[in-house]
Amino acid sequence: MDLLVKKIKTEGKVYPGNILKVDGFLNHQIDPKLMNAIGDEIYRLYKEEKVTKIMTIEASGIAIALATAMKFDVPMLFAKKSQSKNISPSVYSTKVTSFTHGRVYDVMVSRDYLNSDDKVLIVDDFLANGIALKGLINLVEQAGATLVGCAIAIEKGFQSGGKLLRDSGVRIESLAVIKNMTDDGQLEFEDDAE
Amino acid sequence: MDLLVKKIKTEGKVYPGNILKVDGFLNHQIDPKLMNAIGDEIYRLYKEEKVTKIMTIEASGIAIALATAMKFDVPMLFAKKSQSKNISPSVYSTKVTSFTHGRVYDVMVSRDYLNSDDKVLIVDDFLANGIALKGLINLVEQAGATLVGCAIAIEKGFQSGGKLLRDSGVRIESLAVIKNMTDDGQLEFEDDAE
Repeated sequence: MDLLVKKIKTEGKVYPGNILKVDGFLNHQIDPKLMNAIGDEIYRLYKEEKVTKIMTIEASGIAIALATAMKFDVPMLFAKKSQSKNISPSVYSTKVTSFTHGRVYDVMVSRDYLNSDDKVLIVDDFLANGIALKGLINLVEQAGATLVGCAIAIEKGFQSGGKLLRDSGVRIESLAVIKNMTDDGQLEFEDDAE
Repeated sequence: MDLLVKKIKTEGKVYPGNILKVDGFLNHQIDPKLMNAIGDEIYRLYKEEKVTKIMTIEASGIAIALATAMKFDVPMLFAKKSQSKNISPSVYSTKVTSFTHGRVYDVMVSRDYLNSDDKVLIVDDFLANGIALKGLINLVEQAGATLVGCAIAIEKGFQSGGKLLRDSGVRIESLAVIKNMTDDGQLEFEDDAE
């Protein structure tokens, strides 16, 4: 997706350790025009599926997921992170280890809002090792819902998450795939500027 | 705002201790049509101001803030919560006590995205004791930015936050104001169905 790749190239910042900061437009300060365009593109990719729910995880997936839900005109559901020891019986929950924060979270959604009739499209800002996506997919499975696929803004194609999930049969559409990034700030995209 | 009041009346759930659950459409599962309408209404209220930034706090403010930012066509910035002990010098930060979780958080925004030229509209899902809003206002002040006002989806008018903030000169616009709620589930709105 041209606009997103261009934004990453011009405004993204690369730090040692494969860290890409896009907090000027994607996950801290958020560009509403870009969100709208991302929603359009995800709708174009998945419009043939009878999606009934857009699902993501707090906090940085929410903006993209809402923009997408506006295009599909279906509810958006964001999974909540918690470190609480007591999990309510009214939720589906799973454990997710955060790469960024080095902590284990319980990730949960209310059973009221996900059920076996749902056709779920999972949306998130980043795909790297795929741990957050796997957690969300696990919640979809617990609910007996159908997973339509996943739509990701930025995939770090040099990490294993995308390949593992695709190999397991999950449809993954990433709007920008980074093939390679170096500590001195170089970024190489798949199908550069696709 | 009729649509919001109607949603609260038909889908909100009241629990003892002044707890109003609106997680079916506002802060867990999110209704994109409602978000769009909320964005329109907030734009109507503040369109005369030269707003340059919509600001909120993660996670449940993000959807409303994005919908609002889409109407104003300005960036949205969401403050992040953290319990980390080390605050980066690159952020403005303040401490906020969560009513829901009974914990103290550091709330922060990057200095890169808030500055003295900004005219900031703060948006959030709830106003009760006003502690989260005060934290956000504090960040705006630290940046030397101008606070245009606040726009809130649901104000618990029987708690003190709204009055205290208005008395201090802050413009607060709440789309639904609950005057009274009882443990048996009764809700009374200000200017009922305004």
